[in-house]
Amino acid sequence: MRTTTGWRATGPNRLELAAIERRDLRPDDVAVRVEYCGVCHSDLQALRDHTGPAPLVPGHEFTGVVTDIGVEVTSLRIGDPVAVGNIVDSCGECGMCALGQENFCHEFPTLTYSGTDRHDSSITEGAYSREYVVREAFAYRLPDGLDPVSAAPLMCAGVTVWEPLRALGIGSHTRVAVVGLGGLGHLAVKLAAALGATTTVISRTEGKRADAHRLGAQDFIVSADSEQMRQARESFDVVLDTVSAPHDLSRYLELVALDGTLEVLGYLGEVTLPVTDLLMGRKRLGAAGSGGRGQTAELLRFCADTGVVPDVEVLPSSQVAAALERLHRNDVRYRFVLDLSDLDG
Amino acid sequence: MRTTTGWRATGPNRLELAAIERRDLRPDDVAVRVEYCGVCHSDLQALRDHTGPAPLVPGHEFTGVVTDIGVEVTSLRIGDPVAVGNIVDSCGECGMCALGQENFCHEFPTLTYSGTDRHDSSITEGAYSREYVVREAFAYRLPDGLDPVSAAPLMCAGVTVWEPLRALGIGSHTRVAVVGLGGLGHLAVKLAAALGATTTVISRTEGKRADAHRLGAQDFIVSADSEQMRQARESFDVVLDTVSAPHDLSRYLELVALDGTLEVLGYLGEVTLPVTDLLMGRKRLGAAGSGGRGQTAELLRFCADTGVVPDVEVLPSSQVAAALERLHRNDVRYRFVLDLSDLDG
Repeated sequence: MRTTTGWRATGPNRLELAAIERRDLRPDDVAVRVEYCGVCHSDLQALRDHTGPAPLVPGHEFTGVVTDIGVEVTSLRIGDPVAVGNIVDSCGECGMCALGQENFCHEFPTLTYSGTDRHDSSITEGAYSREYVVREAFAYRLPDGLDPVSAAPLMCAGVTVWEPLRALGIGSHTRVAVVGLGGLGHLAVKLAAALGATTTVISRTEGKRADAHRLGAQDFIVSADSEQMRQARESFDVVLDTVSAPHDLSRYLELVALDGTLEVLGYLGEVTLPVTDLLMGRKRLGAAGSGGRGQTAELLRFCADTGVVPDVEVLPSSQVAAALERLHRNDVRYRFVLDLSDLDG
Repeated sequence: MRTTTGWRATGPNRLELAAIERRDLRPDDVAVRVEYCGVCHSDLQALRDHTGPAPLVPGHEFTGVVTDIGVEVTSLRIGDPVAVGNIVDSCGECGMCALGQENFCHEFPTLTYSGTDRHDSSITEGAYSREYVVREAFAYRLPDGLDPVSAAPLMCAGVTVWEPLRALGIGSHTRVAVVGLGGLGHLAVKLAAALGATTTVISRTEGKRADAHRLGAQDFIVSADSEQMRQARESFDVVLDTVSAPHDLSRYLELVALDGTLEVLGYLGEVTLPVTDLLMGRKRLGAAGSGGRGQTAELLRFCADTGVVPDVEVLPSSQVAAALERLHRNDVRYRFVLDLSDLDG
């Protein structure tokens, strides 16, 4: 076994520095020295819900450098900059894997943390740590020109919005609204705008209006203002809903134009709605999350080519508790990235 | 006022022959001698729920002959064969009306029965009667070659499946499944097949297998057979769900392929589902119902050109109670049409 250090949960909302074992490299594995890891809203949820005894080390959007490779690895070399997202393996044989949608693997993809390894059945531990061992196929070489700090949040937040934007054919002809301007939302605005869409931000208060425009949005709607919402009725081909708490979908469906789509990206629970909310306007409700290998690589290339990167605030990993606490209060514009180099000391 | 006769509810599930008043023609009205009227599942529901005091005369998919025209009517003449569906007016000014989707009118379209007339606020009474008075704009001239018996059910059941088939781009590249082989379902199969789609029927039992193939389906799945359902996982681009009772959507969502759609056509209540059922495969849930003027006219032309018509059983209107009772038991292949000529006697 290899040994590294990282931040492991010792109870709900409680992380402590711990020694973490990583497996010896399999033939198709690479070892990655983790440099930067984004702090995702789902990390917050996992920590809140953690009651043990399964080990929990969060972190599933990270970048780093390859430090070792297995004997069969051909696409990566020691010293390569790489990025890893929230899935690290899949069955490779089902219909979804065959389509390059490993994120929808019928056997369920192996999650980067709190997943179950397909070979040794161990519980995976994430990248709030200095080293991670991952199958070559799920480590993406960073394109030249993409800095590793900014690239980290692309690997979960980024690809979660990228896949539906691409699947829905977003382009210069499309009117996109983004509900909620947080980690997911701000990347949705930047990516939709970079794809040429007319983009509107829908936020609870006026507070983020200037940011919305700076990020690329043409318009801004305060969702608490029922008159503004009424005027925006049926004016968007796609509404990307990045709100993570349970909420009423009907008021956002009202914003969807004929044959348009409300895409739920931030909430994973159960939803209830009257069929007539879909029927009147022939609207659709969709959802997406994470990314397959092909589209993850495509996103990294797109961001390197266009210069689209998240707005990040970098903190040393020793401040992870503060980062999580501020994320809980939505006090971040727009993604925390932990710098793991302080774990060398 | 004009007077005709028809079948009016006198209580839940109880119809009696009654004198019915029709308005004097407005400048843009036509009077139609009703020849044939389809028996729709929603008629059954309306009658079941009828407790008065509002008058209820069902019937919203009918054909007949123009017998009189208002002074400003230009597109129809006395003697023209026409068809009328389940909406007879709309605001004409909202965004949906401007798009030709009067069925989604923001001010709600005027329903053919149990609606409220936009001018005199009277309650509309339907076409289980010998005469109907309707705005010219919502009476469609029957194309040559389309017989009035078969055309009647196209006006509600037909256009309800036609609009989503068209909106979803159904063609020779599409794999369509139709859940439920009733009035809506059998037309969905015929129309999808006529559009070139590979079509599969999903039915509770083996009973309708031969019919499914005769109607144009290549395949047939018994939904009670979990092994057949498992094998069909994610194999359809579009699943048209025509089931009218509340039911679990998750097992039909499982049949939807990547980026595909489950379209709810038969049920108008509330639905609940886990977001992950949509997320895993980036699937969408949609709904549709009724038709706008453009697509209603398009459907009639398509059916005249291709010969697609519903399978109907024609009964004299005096047997309306038997028709409704048999429809309740799903004892019809596949749509009852009432012949209103017996009301002349």
